[in-house]
Formats: sequence, structure tokens, C-alpha cells
Amino acid sequence: MSSLLVDNIGELVTNAGAGDGPLGIRRNAAVLVEDGLVAWVGPNRYPPPADRRIDAEGAAVLPGFVDSHAHLVFAGDRAAEFAARMAGEPYTGGGIRTTVGATRAATDDELRATVRRLHGEALRQGTTTVEIKSGYGLTVPDETRSLRLAAEVSEETTFLGAHLVPAEYADRPDDYVGLVCGPMLAAAAPHARWIDVFCERGAFDADHTRAILTCGQAAGLGARLHANQLGQGPGVQLGVELGAASVDHCTHLTDADVDALAGAGGATVATLLPGAEFSTRSPYPDARRLLDAGVTVALATDCNPGSSYTSSMPFCIALAVREMRMSPTEAVWAATAGGAAALRRTDVGQLTPGARADLMILDAPSHLHLAYRPGVPLIRQVLHNGVPQCRP
Amino acid sequence: MSSLLVDNIGELVTNAGAGDGPLGIRRNAAVLVEDGLVAWVGPNRYPPPADRRIDAEGAAVLPGFVDSHAHLVFAGDRAAEFAARMAGEPYTGGGIRTTVGATRAATDDELRATVRRLHGEALRQGTTTVEIKSGYGLTVPDETRSLRLAAEVSEETTFLGAHLVPAEYADRPDDYVGLVCGPMLAAAAPHARWIDVFCERGAFDADHTRAILTCGQAAGLGARLHANQLGQGPGVQLGVELGAASVDHCTHLTDADVDALAGAGGATVATLLPGAEFSTRSPYPDARRLLDAGVTVALATDCNPGSSYTSSMPFCIALAVREMRMSPTEAVWAATAGGAAALRRTDVGQLTPGARADLMILDAPSHLHLAYRPGVPLIRQVLHNGVPQCRP
Ligand SMILES: [Zn+2]
Ligand SMILES: [Zn+2]
Repeated sequence: MSSLLVDNIGELVTNAGAGDGPLGIRRNAAVLVEDGLVAWVGPNRYPPPADRRIDAEGAAVLPGFVDSHAHLVFAGDRAAEFAARMAGEPYTGGGIRTTVGATRAATDDELRATVRRLHGEALRQGTTTVEIKSGYGLTVPDETRSLRLAAEVSEETTFLGAHLVPAEYADRPDDYVGLVCGPMLAAAAPHARWIDVFCERGAFDADHTRAILTCGQAAGLGARLHANQLGQGPGVQLGVELGAASVDHCTHLTDADVDALAGAGGATVATLLPGAEFSTRSPYPDARRLLDAGVTVALATDCNPGSSYTSSMPFCIALAVREMRMSPTEAVWAATAGGAAALRRTDVGQLTPGARADLMILDAPSHLHLAYRPGVPLIRQVLHNGVPQCRP
Repeated sequence: MSSLLVDNIGELVTNAGAGDGPLGIRRNAAVLVEDGLVAWVGPNRYPPPADRRIDAEGAAVLPGFVDSHAHLVFAGDRAAEFAARMAGEPYTGGGIRTTVGATRAATDDELRATVRRLHGEALRQGTTTVEIKSGYGLTVPDETRSLRLAAEVSEETTFLGAHLVPAEYADRPDDYVGLVCGPMLAAAAPHARWIDVFCERGAFDADHTRAILTCGQAAGLGARLHANQLGQGPGVQLGVELGAASVDHCTHLTDADVDALAGAGGATVATLLPGAEFSTRSPYPDARRLLDAGVTVALATDCNPGSSYTSSMPFCIALAVREMRMSPTEAVWAATAGGAAALRRTDVGQLTPGARADLMILDAPSHLHLAYRPGVPLIRQVLHNGVPQCRP
């Protein structure tokens, strides 16, 4: 059993009660790692013995980011669609079909290369837990292989057969819902932890969403959903009612939606995805309204080739502060502990004894710099399961 | 004489006439580097012989970014001021005094460490030319050492003694202007290429600005200025009248300001600094109005610890597209050739025979990805004067 001490930590974000403020900050701290887990957190001046040592040189250390919403299994590139949208074309979600076609046509190795490239890119930016959705296959074999490939790099896999009704079912959506709840779910469930539905006008309505989430839950999957991104709708309240771990986007909310989320007492997290609003030039969700109502908020990237092709949690933090008026502290909590709550995890998103030794050392003295220094790659070193990751 | 071939370039941005469109794009290209300069640009299938080779593997290659506006010589940190501003306090520029105090108190080695850290950080993000201003010393010795330290890492140094009237001259600004134009200029000029003035209500008015720029020009320095950031004012038209290479910020412009810039025919560039609007939560400049009037536009970071602590040109490109409605192509041009124009350079900002071999290989197939993938570190490899830079 080899141990590793990270010491000379100027500011340690623990996200746990023993430290100061909502981030549980400890100053002049050290962290001992054993067997991939945090074994001890304490003052720098009294460190336990360890086999190896990493000197943080006074920098800030945070739990690894928990990106609870990403679509990394796809083929093709939609840069031209992005450029056209920036020149004025509206975002309708229709471009998803382009990616479905390319994904179905791709080989396993092509898809695997993309998943691994984006997973590695995220890891270098401090993301040590990333949820990965299927949803660009929309056939039994294509959804299944998407989840199988996702599971090669992450334990947080989500079956999103209900991303969109594929063209071949356009005039018989009930049949597609039957396929999703029947043979597709049966094939997908062994490779997935979660089930997700894109509940939106033009995608799946309340009845379909309820049917799909319910059958997924019966198959042992946890529920989560895309809701209220492009307009108001039934998704958020349905998510709370069904006990979804998270409702994601939450851009267009009624007072009743906010009340429902507040009443969930953290059991259903509101996950905000400001990268999507950035890259579709849409109005941002009202994070303050949610926070002020006591809702648990997470931040995630929504990384996907259409509406938000960023894997950068620091970028999402900077947007959350600039555009959604979250404080830097609220944003960092939402990107770490908030993401963990959205995945119902207590072993990640915090640095306390027993948690996974997933952490990052910043090129900065404080977590504030993640918002204060937008766009700058500030992640000096990442440990994942206690293992220092190499630069590429 | 050792030569280096960069080949298998999927998309080469040359910013020169021989290629396609405003970026002079060549596909399936190669670049030969000799003696730190571009020696040849041509099709990948007919490369000249070379001693060494870098395989771009089909990626995009661009000229290095030219960041024509940065304040890298300072001490101290204003993260707490940033967090307070994000919680609602307005930006007035008054915090500059905090940095002046810290900078005066710092040792040469402390300032040198900051300049080198930020210069290296920018270089890793693709910036191969960076203009560096003084302006946090505001005494003869402190301005002089700031420029001396800046000149250790860049040939583009700017004397900004007229950043703010320091507290000790608050009730006699004419005397401070006399100091700037007299002994301070005499001491600074040997270390500077440019002179700059913060022409803004609360800083320097039209008469002071004219006096300072004119005496700087008489001492052999080129003129540039901060103008029209916080409100309308005389700066932009004064800059055009005095033949300034660039007027920077241009956030609040009258029709007459735009006409003056358009009439300059590119001799005076409008440099937009959207990082400042991002980090002060201010309205962005109207880039389309300038571009549609035929004004030459540059993008730069304004990297400084108060209003824009980013060194990331890719972040500025993403903001320019999202917030200022520049096309990705216009933004990439403004961040490379535009910056070169703002510094009156033809040896950087383009990849043509005879230019400096300053270039970057992206982790992406197209320049579009710099806007399409916001926040993601996409710079795989940087060559500066033909020398491949190591990862840290
Ligand atoms: Zn999504
Ligand atoms: Zn400036």
C-alpha cells in the first residue's frame, strides 16, 4: 500500500463541514492519499508520513469537477452549423439528426476515439467524474454500443434513447416510445446507471416522458431528464414527482416549477448548463431565483457537438458568475459537490477521509481564480483515484 | 542552418492573398521554417527537403496570436475586488490604485516572476507576440523598471505613465502631466516602442492626452490609446487625428467616431477588448457597426489584474463571436492579422515567406473550433521564431 501526501496547500476546498464557509475551506493544509482514497486531511504543519509527496507550493486544491451532463459518444462535426447559427440562424435542436446519421455510420473504433479524446480533454481540465449519455444512436444496437463505449471510461452512463424521435419513426412516435421501453431498454440497461428523456416541445411530451422514465426505473435505472430548455413545459415538475436525481437546463421556469424544486429538498437537483446558452446565444437560466429559493444547483457542460461543444468546467464556472450571478463560491460548489448531488454520489465532489482521491491543484492561490481568470487553463495537476495524471 | 517542415496541415490560415477568403486558407498544406522565418508555404504533396519534421496530422495551423494590449507588469491580486464586483459593485477603474501600491512595493524579482509567468501562460495559449504596458508604477523609477522588465520578454513595450493620476498628484494633475512628458518620458523612452494614455473621464482629458501623445511622438514613440471605454469622449477622434496605431476599447462610440475610424483607412485600428466587458459585466462594443463601416478591428486581452485577468486569446475570440456578432473568421483575423496591424507589424500575424515562424497547431481541424469549443485548451503545439515550445 503506497501513500501520497499533497502538502503546502494554501487553500483547500473540502466541501465538508469542518472547514470555513460553504466550501469548507482549510488554509495551509495537506491531504494524505492511500489506495486511491483520501485517508487524512489536516494542517500542513503536522503531516502524517507518506511514501511520496507532491508540493502544492501554496496553491489552491479542489475536489475534481463532477460534470453530471455530457454527450460524448458521437461522430461528425457541426462547426459549420455553429458558424451559421452565430450569423443569425436560430437553434431548434434539429441538427441532432445530423449527428445521429454520422454516429450510426461510424465504426466502434471511431466512436471510441472520440469518447476517449473528450474524456481525456475533460480530465486535463480537472473533471474526474463525467456522466456520459447515449442518444445519437436511436436504434437498439447503436444505443447499446454507445453505452458500452461510454462505460469503458466512466461508471456514470445514461441511456438517452429518448433524445429525439428518429426520422424513421416521425409519423409514429408511440411506436418509438414502445421500442425505447421494450427491446432498447432491455439491451441498454446492463450498460447504464441512468435513464434520461429530452422532454421538450418537438421531442417527448409529458406522457411519453413519464412512460419512459417509469419503465427505466422499473429496470433499475435512476431517472434524470432534459427539461424546460427551449420553453416552459411539464418536465421539471414531472422530474420532481418521479424522484429524478436531476432536471437539467431549467432555463424557462414558472413559479410552480421553482416551488417544486425547492420542495424536493435537494433530492432533485437543478442542473444548469450555461455552455448551451453561450453557444446558442440564448438567455441564461435564472440561477439566483433557484438559489434564493433554496434549490440545490449543479453546473455541467452539456458537452455535445451541436449546442455546447465545451468540455470545460472552468468555463462554465466563469459563465455562471458573469451571466447567472452566482458567486464564485456558489459556482465552484455547484461544479463539484453540486454535480455529485446530481449523480447521488457522496464519494466524489468532496475531500474528506474515505472520499475518492480525485483532486486538482490550480495554478492559482484561490478557487476565486476560476472565475477571475476566464479562459485561462489554470489546472496544474490532476489526481484521479489518487493517481497523478500526466500532461499529454 | 537547420530547417523544419510542418506538414499534413489540414487547414492552413495564412492571412495572405494567395489562399481562400479573408484568412487566405490553404488546405492540405505544409510550411517550411528556416532561421526562425517562414521559408516556403505550399501543397503538402510537394514539400521541400528539411532536417526535421512536425506532423500536424490533418489539424488546423494558424499564425500565432498577436495580443496588442496587455498589462503584465504588476504585483498583487484583486480576486476579492472581482468577487465583490460580481456581487453588484460597479467598475470605476479606481482599483488601479491598489495595484499601483503593490507594484511600487514589489521587488524587481517579484515583478519579473509575474511578467514571465503571464508571458509563458500566453505563449502556451498560442500568443507569440504580446504588447506589454507599464502604468502601475507612476513614478520615474517604477515606470522605467516596468518597461525594462517588459522588454526582457517582448519587443512591444508601451509607456503608460498616463494610466491614472497617482494619489500624490491628485490635486495638481497638470504637474503630473509635466512629469510624464518630462523626466518620466526621458527615462522610459529608451525601453519603449509606444506611448499610451488612458483618455477617460476621471483619468486624462483631451488636452492632457494630446500633450502626452505629442511629446511621446516627438521622443520617437508611436501613439496608441485607451479610449471610450466607460463613456463617450474625445479619445477616438483624437487618436485618429494624431495618427495613433490603435484606439483601444471603443465601447461607447458616436457616429462621428465610427466615421473617423473608417476614414483612417486602417492606419488607426479599433482594438476591442471583450475580456474587460466580460469581467466587469459591462455592455460589449458594437463590433458589427465598426466592421460594417469598413474599420480595421483587432482583438486583444487587456490582461490586467483588475478588469480583465485573462491571457487567453481563444477566450476573446469566443466572446467576440457570441457577444459581438463577429463571425469566427472575422474574430480569428482580428486576433492575428488585426493585432499585427494594431502594432504596425507585417512580419507577424501572417504565414507567408519572410514572416516570423510564429504559429500554432490546434487540436482541431479548423479555426472555427476556437469559437465552437469555448474554454477548451485547443492549442496543441506552438512555434515561436521557429522554435517548438515545450509544454510546462
Ligand atoms: Zn444534454
Ligand atoms: Zn488596458
